[in-house]
Amino acid sequence: MIATMNPRRDHPQIVIVGAGFGGLEATMALARAPVEVTLIDRTNHHCFQPLLYQVATAALSPAEVAWPIRHILRRQKNVTVLMAEVTGVDLALKRVELQGAGPVDYDTLIVATGATHSYFGHDEWAEHAPGLKRIEDATRIRRHILLGFEQAELASDEAERQRLLTFVLVGGGATGVEMAGAIAEIARHTIARDFRRIDPRTARIILLEAGPRILPALPEDLADYAAKALTRMGVDVRTATRVTNCDARGVDLEGGRIDAGTVIWAAGVVASPAARWLGAEHDRAGRVIVGPDLSLPKWPDVFVIGDAASATDAKGRPLPGVAPVAKQMGRYVGKLIAARLAGKTLPDFRYRHPGDLATVGRRAAVVKIGPFHLKGFIGWLFWGVAHIYFLIGLRYRFIVAFTWLWDYLTFQRGARLITEVPRQTKSTVSDAPTPP
Amino acid sequence: MIATMNPRRDHPQIVIVGAGFGGLEATMALARAPVEVTLIDRTNHHCFQPLLYQVATAALSPAEVAWPIRHILRRQKNVTVLMAEVTGVDLALKRVELQGAGPVDYDTLIVATGATHSYFGHDEWAEHAPGLKRIEDATRIRRHILLGFEQAELASDEAERQRLLTFVLVGGGATGVEMAGAIAEIARHTIARDFRRIDPRTARIILLEAGPRILPALPEDLADYAAKALTRMGVDVRTATRVTNCDARGVDLEGGRIDAGTVIWAAGVVASPAARWLGAEHDRAGRVIVGPDLSLPKWPDVFVIGDAASATDAKGRPLPGVAPVAKQMGRYVGKLIAARLAGKTLPDFRYRHPGDLATVGRRAAVVKIGPFHLKGFIGWLFWGVAHIYFLIGLRYRFIVAFTWLWDYLTFQRGARLITEVPRQTKSTVSDAPTPP
Repeated sequence: MIATMNPRRDHPQIVIVGAGFGGLEATMALARAPVEVTLIDRTNHHCFQPLLYQVATAALSPAEVAWPIRHILRRQKNVTVLMAEVTGVDLALKRVELQGAGPVDYDTLIVATGATHSYFGHDEWAEHAPGLKRIEDATRIRRHILLGFEQAELASDEAERQRLLTFVLVGGGATGVEMAGAIAEIARHTIARDFRRIDPRTARIILLEAGPRILPALPEDLADYAAKALTRMGVDVRTATRVTNCDARGVDLEGGRIDAGTVIWAAGVVASPAARWLGAEHDRAGRVIVGPDLSLPKWPDVFVIGDAASATDAKGRPLPGVAPVAKQMGRYVGKLIAARLAGKTLPDFRYRHPGDLATVGRRAAVVKIGPFHLKGFIGWLFWGVAHIYFLIGLRYRFIVAFTWLWDYLTFQRGARLITEVPRQTKSTVSDAPTPP
Repeated sequence: MIATMNPRRDHPQIVIVGAGFGGLEATMALARAPVEVTLIDRTNHHCFQPLLYQVATAALSPAEVAWPIRHILRRQKNVTVLMAEVTGVDLALKRVELQGAGPVDYDTLIVATGATHSYFGHDEWAEHAPGLKRIEDATRIRRHILLGFEQAELASDEAERQRLLTFVLVGGGATGVEMAGAIAEIARHTIARDFRRIDPRTARIILLEAGPRILPALPEDLADYAAKALTRMGVDVRTATRVTNCDARGVDLEGGRIDAGTVIWAAGVVASPAARWLGAEHDRAGRVIVGPDLSLPKWPDVFVIGDAASATDAKGRPLPGVAPVAKQMGRYVGKLIAARLAGKTLPDFRYRHPGDLATVGRRAAVVKIGPFHLKGFIGWLFWGVAHIYFLIGLRYRFIVAFTWLWDYLTFQRGARLITEVPRQTKSTVSDAPTPP
């Protein structure tokens, strides 16, 4: 008999894996249900991914967009949070297996494990072209961008200096657009006068998109505006341009080559290993194919939500991997479980799309809300207010609002830290003269 | 002929290695002198070490106590900042050698490379008992402390749970006292209600000091107060207790053993490799023995300042390794160089001790300023105001003041992030089902 991790057994056991938007919403939707919830995540924090690019570009600190899961849920007494790595799911025994701890039994399971970057079968590119999904990705990219300028200042060879000052973004969706705009602002404003041997304003920022235009989720007029705004900021926007290889010194294109010091991957995502755990049918991106109530076919007590799930809207179009989908799915499944316990049921899940938005830079963003198309300053204000609103907790709303206001007025960025220095430079401890 | 890194050659070249308190003060003291300054540091930031323990204990974010050196000095036009690792100094050729870049020629050299932890010849303890000198140390310790509670929540064995909830601080100086108080507050207040399987208030926090009392730099009445305040907060203060070994599961004492999940080293420091670079005479802690004007004997154009230097006050007592010493030394050497260029000189360096202070916890700190002994609430207010005052930049003063006020009112801490997840849990990328 293995000791399980479940706290008490006098209520139905709901186990939720993943504390992203979907997992968190599902947990909160169960706050008043007569259940015990165990929420498992491999980190201790919920990451507000829409602002992660601001950590990667030194505008915000990690702690401003990543909050302890326990703290968010401290008042919800029917939740136990476990920081642990899930290694598998036993559907027959109804238990989730953890690394280094006992398993967790469930009556109902919600899998909300999200997605990670996809290199379309070229995982070896990951080393040279990091993607942006987790806090550690953001500090890694921040380090890469800032080090590019530092190393250019040290470089004695002109070609090498130009390479180090070349930044390539692969993928013209919201993340690629937002990163490109932010790097352009760093080079043109934030650090423009901080160097003596290089002029950061000469940095090349190149946004590559394989499709015919950037921001495919947005209407064409807004995408056009964003492309023009980026170009005005000095970003080289290249559509219909496919990357064929990434290496330590740049990228190869179909018919071309860009030597670059920094390459950032914003092109594709692949779902977490949920499909493998569940032995379930999945789509090309690894997302588990779920039924109309988001449960697994033949396993009505197992739900898959958010980026880990493959679902369609009323017209049969696949739902995008965005926060509103995950949140609505989480809320739906939480309510469905509560309804079932009360002997009721709910109609099938139906997604309501609130709109799309992306920021390009200072006073330039694009927003589509229903029939409304906003751009420029008004779009940018809307974007800022919307993101402040969705932050959890007054403290972070205040700090982020203050930071944005300060940065807007001063053209600065407050988190320009290069941390995690590579190992070979950490040798001074052992080099130090040992006291006799 | 090697290409050197020096920007222009129409002024005397002053090279400063290290952008801590000493190097930064020296740089700023040369702002109006007819010189070219090259400031070299292996990081891109100046770390405000007095508040580093607040990063380690999740109260502040790294970017709030570590600021880009370039940004601090952006208006001082006679400074070039280089982020590079110094590998040696050639005194005869008057040049500083860098890793991966050309050397830097100097007319005058200031070495301000600081100190790191000393394990008294037991460098193998470093792995188990990290010390606190750099931003990376602080995030590592923060991770260790927070993971202690997370792993205790997962543990099924009672002895192992108690071990994980035991925190040992080695060294009863200001850092050890401040860390012990902060960990006690985390356990007793911040996360007291965040767990379901453990009660964080049962955590053991043990402060070990080899000497007869804690805070040896402060007068006995203040140290007594601090020890009592710590005890009241639940810290087990043990003086005259020497650690004989650190391993992965705790520490051995002379006549005893403490099983612990977290051991933090706050006991000893050793100077940077400056003595080796300079082939200079040094004391037992590796600090370079300097003359009364802080220059190297026989090399009047080479100065060593701050924690890297061994100097004495007017009564022949060694100067402590604290920020005021480094700052006053930096300012003195900067002024001395400017005076020499004007054909003048300065009297020997003389240190003026502003006082000592340490905070124990909420509304409890000890301060000695000249004849005044402050403690309790008034000492704590003084400590806070003094630290806000010494932060560089209005932005950080505001953010830190806001954070402290918020945390004081809510008993919270805003930066409870566990980042840099160990490698074995990073496997999901390759585990993800690959799209066909």
